[in-house]
Amino acid sequence: NGTVRPGQFFSDGRRKVDYVLVFHHCRQTSLKGSAHHHPPHRLNVISNGSFPPADPVGGAVGQRGGGDREVCVDLGVGVDSVVEEAYLEGDPAEGEKVLIREEFEARLLEAGLEMERDTEIRVYGPSFTRLHAPWSVLSREAEFLKIKVPTNKSYRVREERGLSGTLSEFWRKMNQPFQPSIPQLDHSTKHLAHFSSQHNITEGLLLHDEWARYGAFYKYQPVDLIRKYFGEKIGLYFAWLGLYTQLLIPASIVGVFVFCYGCNTVDTNIPSQEMCDEHQNFTMCPLCDRACDYWQLSSECGTARTSHLFDNPATVFFAIFMSVWVAMFLEQWKRRQITLNHSWDLTGLEDEEVETHTLLFIYHYGDRLPGYLINISSILFMFGLTFSLVFGMIVYRIVLSTVMAMSPDPQTKSNVRVTVTATAVTINLVVILILDEIYGAVAVWLTELEIPRTERDFEERLILKAFLLKFVNAYAPIFYVAFFKGRFAGRPGDYVYVFNDYRMEECAPGGCLIELCIQLSIIMVGKQLIQNNMFEIGIPKLKKLIRAFKDKGISLEEREGQLTRHPQQWNLDYTLVPFDGLTPEYMEMIIQFGFVSLFVASFPLAPLFALINNVIEIRLDAKKFVTELRRPDSVRTKDIGIWYNILSGMGKFSVIINAFVISFTSGFIPRMVYQYMYSPTGTMHGFVDHSLSYFNISHFPSGTAPTSKAPNITFCRYRDYREPPWSAEAYQFSKAYWAVLAARLAFVILFQNLVMFLGLLVAWMISDVPKDISEQLKREKKMLVDVFLREEKEKLHLVQTLFSKNHPSEGHPETSQYCGRCVVAEYFPADLSQTVDVR
Amino acid sequence: NGTVRPGQFFSDGRRKVDYVLVFHHCRQTSLKGSAHHHPPHRLNVISNGSFPPADPVGGAVGQRGGGDREVCVDLGVGVDSVVEEAYLEGDPAEGEKVLIREEFEARLLEAGLEMERDTEIRVYGPSFTRLHAPWSVLSREAEFLKIKVPTNKSYRVREERGLSGTLSEFWRKMNQPFQPSIPQLDHSTKHLAHFSSQHNITEGLLLHDEWARYGAFYKYQPVDLIRKYFGEKIGLYFAWLGLYTQLLIPASIVGVFVFCYGCNTVDTNIPSQEMCDEHQNFTMCPLCDRACDYWQLSSECGTARTSHLFDNPATVFFAIFMSVWVAMFLEQWKRRQITLNHSWDLTGLEDEEVETHTLLFIYHYGDRLPGYLINISSILFMFGLTFSLVFGMIVYRIVLSTVMAMSPDPQTKSNVRVTVTATAVTINLVVILILDEIYGAVAVWLTELEIPRTERDFEERLILKAFLLKFVNAYAPIFYVAFFKGRFAGRPGDYVYVFNDYRMEECAPGGCLIELCIQLSIIMVGKQLIQNNMFEIGIPKLKKLIRAFKDKGISLEEREGQLTRHPQQWNLDYTLVPFDGLTPEYMEMIIQFGFVSLFVASFPLAPLFALINNVIEIRLDAKKFVTELRRPDSVRTKDIGIWYNILSGMGKFSVIINAFVISFTSGFIPRMVYQYMYSPTGTMHGFVDHSLSYFNISHFPSGTAPTSKAPNITFCRYRDYREPPWSAEAYQFSKAYWAVLAARLAFVILFQNLVMFLGLLVAWMISDVPKDISEQLKREKKMLVDVFLREEKEKLHLVQTLFSKNHPSEGHPETSQYCGRCVVAEYFPADLSQTVDVR
Repeated sequence: NGTVRPGQFFSDGRRKVDYVLVFHHCRQTSLKGSAHHHPPHRLNVISNGSFPPADPVGGAVGQRGGGDREVCVDLGVGVDSVVEEAYLEGDPAEGEKVLIREEFEARLLEAGLEMERDTEIRVYGPSFTRLHAPWSVLSREAEFLKIKVPTNKSYRVREERGLSGTLSEFWRKMNQPFQPSIPQLDHSTKHLAHFSSQHNITEGLLLHDEWARYGAFYKYQPVDLIRKYFGEKIGLYFAWLGLYTQLLIPASIVGVFVFCYGCNTVDTNIPSQEMCDEHQNFTMCPLCDRACDYWQLSSECGTARTSHLFDNPATVFFAIFMSVWVAMFLEQWKRRQITLNHSWDLTGLEDEEVETHTLLFIYHYGDRLPGYLINISSILFMFGLTFSLVFGMIVYRIVLSTVMAMSPDPQTKSNVRVTVTATAVTINLVVILILDEIYGAVAVWLTELEIPRTERDFEERLILKAFLLKFVNAYAPIFYVAFFKGRFAGRPGDYVYVFNDYRMEECAPGGCLIELCIQLSIIMVGKQLIQNNMFEIGIPKLKKLIRAFKDKGISLEEREGQLTRHPQQWNLDYTLVPFDGLTPEYMEMIIQFGFVSLFVASFPLAPLFALINNVIEIRLDAKKFVTELRRPDSVRTKDIGIWYNILSGMGKFSVIINAFVISFTSGFIPRMVYQYMYSPTGTMHGFVDHSLSYFNISHFPSGTAPTSKAPNITFCRYRDYREPPWSAEAYQFSKAYWAVLAARLAFVILFQNLVMFLGLLVAWMISDVPKDISEQLKREKKMLVDVFLREEKEKLHLVQTLFSKNHPSEGHPETSQYCGRCVVAEYFPADLSQTVDVR
Repeated sequence: NGTVRPGQFFSDGRRKVDYVLVFHHCRQTSLKGSAHHHPPHRLNVISNGSFPPADPVGGAVGQRGGGDREVCVDLGVGVDSVVEEAYLEGDPAEGEKVLIREEFEARLLEAGLEMERDTEIRVYGPSFTRLHAPWSVLSREAEFLKIKVPTNKSYRVREERGLSGTLSEFWRKMNQPFQPSIPQLDHSTKHLAHFSSQHNITEGLLLHDEWARYGAFYKYQPVDLIRKYFGEKIGLYFAWLGLYTQLLIPASIVGVFVFCYGCNTVDTNIPSQEMCDEHQNFTMCPLCDRACDYWQLSSECGTARTSHLFDNPATVFFAIFMSVWVAMFLEQWKRRQITLNHSWDLTGLEDEEVETHTLLFIYHYGDRLPGYLINISSILFMFGLTFSLVFGMIVYRIVLSTVMAMSPDPQTKSNVRVTVTATAVTINLVVILILDEIYGAVAVWLTELEIPRTERDFEERLILKAFLLKFVNAYAPIFYVAFFKGRFAGRPGDYVYVFNDYRMEECAPGGCLIELCIQLSIIMVGKQLIQNNMFEIGIPKLKKLIRAFKDKGISLEEREGQLTRHPQQWNLDYTLVPFDGLTPEYMEMIIQFGFVSLFVASFPLAPLFALINNVIEIRLDAKKFVTELRRPDSVRTKDIGIWYNILSGMGKFSVIINAFVISFTSGFIPRMVYQYMYSPTGTMHGFVDHSLSYFNISHFPSGTAPTSKAPNITFCRYRDYREPPWSAEAYQFSKAYWAVLAARLAFVILFQNLVMFLGLLVAWMISDVPKDISEQLKREKKMLVDVFLREEKEKLHLVQTLFSKNHPSEGHPETSQYCGRCVVAEYFPADLSQTVDVR
């Protein structure tokens, strides 16, 4: 399959190009300073044929190795920037470099690889050396990586029968339009293990048509094909992303239903009716000192009604649902991972560790302690930076709203809330996006300081740090709104002031939940839109441009000439952007997962937004991988590593966060307490009155009372549970306050333990290993024993034949049938300790 | 080593007896009915030499196989009772039986085993057939079980140097007297894997002297030896028990310190001082209707002081400590298990499943649904039984105390509390012990109804059921005292009555914690003492006696004659009790673990009692295993199975239970709330007064006021937070009640999340794989690659030599040194998808 195309084969048109090495010849000398951070990389073919057994360092076993290109020419990953610096050491070393290069290539030849250089020798610009790994090398390396080969034996996977068979057939048919139209692997007969040594050249095209376009958004991803072409690590990422997106569908549907429930009940909801009722005439205490006037609660009717959309009993159900959903997602992923491990033959793969490039430099740094200290203090500093920015935003809001409230222009005055919120959130979003990029760079810098020993170690530490920083960055303002805003504002007559002049901000009269909801949706949608469009599409394009520009600077005409003369595949590939790891892709998704799980109680539409984003994201990533990046080194791995731990940690965290959001941020608990403890009718009538405390306006400290006009009232109302002015303990927390607090806390305990129990139940019910996989494994093992036994028997037979020539046959009794009945009364192994008693 | 002893070898004195089969010849015919429950057992040598490849059923792979006796003659486990029935099918079948027996023995011979029968043929009584597994059979089976053999290569485990080396040397020396004095395995050089084909005959004696005596209680157990002699499963049990006991030592020490803290502070404790102060003159409301009189709080001074021993701030610390201890224990066990897996070469072992004997009978029962229904309803019934017994105990206590209070005898009256508590707890203990045995049998019956498919499955289901039943049985009365007693008693003037006449019981004036403590200590100590002494020593002795008596009934003189004539080892072994699984041993320990973890907040001495019990228990079990039981079949297993899940589930449960015990059962939170919210001085002075509510004695319903004499008081006091009679909301819960409730709930949330976080931290900090093990694994892998490579190279060399005869040498460039510098500027795998762009 596939016609011979220039650039995919050696000049003989037969041997395929498996790997391309690029050498730069250049006149400029630009010594960059950071070379000592990146030691030279060692050739890491697992076995190089002439491997010296006495040298233990030389025997380091490489983990890398393509799924089906088993030549593990691991020269380090992400080296491009490094090596560009390494070779620019000027003219004097040029002669030495040629020698080194020749030695390097000799080692490759020695390891059994075949090589083809450009026919013409050029002095400037990149020159390409193509490598081909012949079958013998592939087999040798495959043996080291313990890749299974198929035996002649194959077996039929049992077909399901009866009702379940019909159902699964129906399901398959239903799914047909969603399956990518690629030649299906025949799943009904499965070989013991796949091991394909042939590159399928058409793979690349397939992938392009069936996966990397937006038109295919509704289809399943061809995960097996992705893995075959890009290796297991990237295959697992897309499989994970696919499962996550798939499971977002039910979550979105339930979320939309919850939202619709809110929409439908908003007119029958008694608390919002009462708030909108102008006859009830609740005169509220002013929202700021002096400048603000008393106001009518009914003027905030709109917020109250909007608030109900997100703050209704269905939200509680949805929070529980989503917590179980998270547990389900984690379990389903475990299953999927095991299924993929099985079908990709990774079950036997153990995580071997690759020493990083920085290994040699451990001793340069001497003690690691300073590194750790810098690390911790830097992270704390970053946290501090984030928190102070959040505080800065608070101050900005307080000051702006005070200033605007004092403005004589009534137009300005009426728009206070809208203006303040809009500007603040926008600034916040920009700050988050900028800090996100900075924190990414800081995390890399900090991890390099730590000098981790292995590549996996490096990656995990980097991820953990980057995650912590980005998480705090993205969520700090949201946490503030959810749990702190309006809780330290004090009460009329005893407000809390910052900088002696500005009153702490309060939540909107509809409750803090609506503000949380606005904050969440803007940050989530904004972050995704901007990061997707600008960073994921724009930045790579920009980088490519810069690269092209740089290379042009060196020898524009020459390269152009080459390109037109030989439009070889490798020339085109070289112009693509190098792949720099999956971390940013995962990170983006994990932060999104946080929006979906952590605060879902306040924003039931989050799964829907996430779903829309992901459907686009998958195809965007696919396009990027197939057409815009150089084909990455394929890496074998069994799992998604530390990301699973982060996901599961977030799942645990989300339970307690949702519990607190429902009980403290939403008005659910106060409403319940009123209905069942205080309501004289057992309904919600009178709830608004009950939730507002009285304040005697003569108790305002001098200079804080509204100046506008003389009031014709004695009491103004405010949202809190405090004793009325006529009580002996005026303005102290009332009994209702404590009762509501107790109910809130009891709800947290109940919710947390219920959800934890449900999570355990889900984990227990969904077994990690799917039943058909475990059956297949059993069958394979049995077949293996089978083959082994036959060999054993043949050997025995041979020995016996040889032996019987010397000794006369002893004639074992012939037993043609198996003795199925047990005639032994009892049996036991010989007991040796009893000899003590015999003596 | 070891002299030739009669009975341990075949008559040639050379071949060792590895297995003994017993055949019964008897005249009686007693057909028992339950034979269909136990189908005949199939001979399960993994490979029997003449294995028919066409028959897939015959290829079932057995899991069993001794640690070093790899002849896996698995005839089913626990068959003794079965087979005793199976052969008793009367005379007519006797001829057939002889045929079957011969066929059976022929199959054994065919499988390569060697056999020796008794020289004289007897008609009655048991006759013994000894089996010897020759080296060739051992090797063949070992290959199937993938047992590693040592290569010639061995390497030195790196010695620690510097400070840590000195420390570990010091630690080793310190530990010297605690190590069992057996010939130590040389740990400084370790072979790639152990595989000893030689039985060490002296093992039995060693084990007896160094392990199975009380004198050795302070020593570590020779776990390696135990594993070698009894197999991995039993080895793991003792290793687990050892680790548990070892970790109980620090827990006991801290527990004793906490108790001592209580003892030391009892005199300076203000609440108990106030309670004992007779000047304070708190007149309490009567404890029962009519018959009881008002009483002075100071009369209960003793309980108040005792209560402080267990109910002090140190207890809170201890509860947190113990929760972390549980997490630590679980993590340490994971580590230990991995270490043992490594040193016992189990790392590659996969759990294969053995089909149970009941397999054939699945179709007999048809649908399993009825089984499940019976199951669930039976378990619910048992739970109901337990709960009704607990309720019965409550009624007993209520009635007895009411009756005794009404008795005219003042002697009786004064002893009410002591008599009631003592009798009730004793009855309770007896009921628990009896139900424990019943529930064990019920669990077996129920599991048989379910017809699980594999032995492991059977065991796990049985364990789960037995655990649930026994757990509820042991803890139901304790839960009642901890969380329900005294909470539904009502208040003076509005008491809760059962059966219209009897008031619900209240806690002692010192608080419920002291009652919980008494209940716990009696059940824990009593259960352990009685179960240890009576059931573990007495019952096996009794069983042995009965067995001996039975056999005597058959042919007393004949057997006696034989015994005196040939006191062969197997005759003696046969008189021992057969081994019936580790489940009871584990179960006992897990229930004990519950006492140590679940309610430790109320009884800090629990770890100490557990420690004392376990030190005895280990040696008792050891003695039992070595001298009183037949040597059990050794079973290879990697872990302790479902027990770990149960332990970890209990650990999770214990967090929430301890949180509730501290916040609701102990007086810690009310004291804290008083001190920080209500106390005018900021000290505890006045706490007792604050915690007692007022009752106007004129409000007693008619007929419930004390009849003894006219009172000279208007108010009596009772322990609750309610509004006083003069308030507008008389006898309603006061604000203090709600504040205390909120504080209690807040504490639960705080405690639970803090402890869960600490648990995660512990799990994260203690890596599952110890560092030295992971290093050894790496080294072993490297050596393996090493060996492999050398072979590969030799092969290559051979091929090259042959090849060079035909072709002239191409002369690879000689590179003597490794090229450490990377001269490749960039590299990438050949990109195939880009061909799309080329077209």
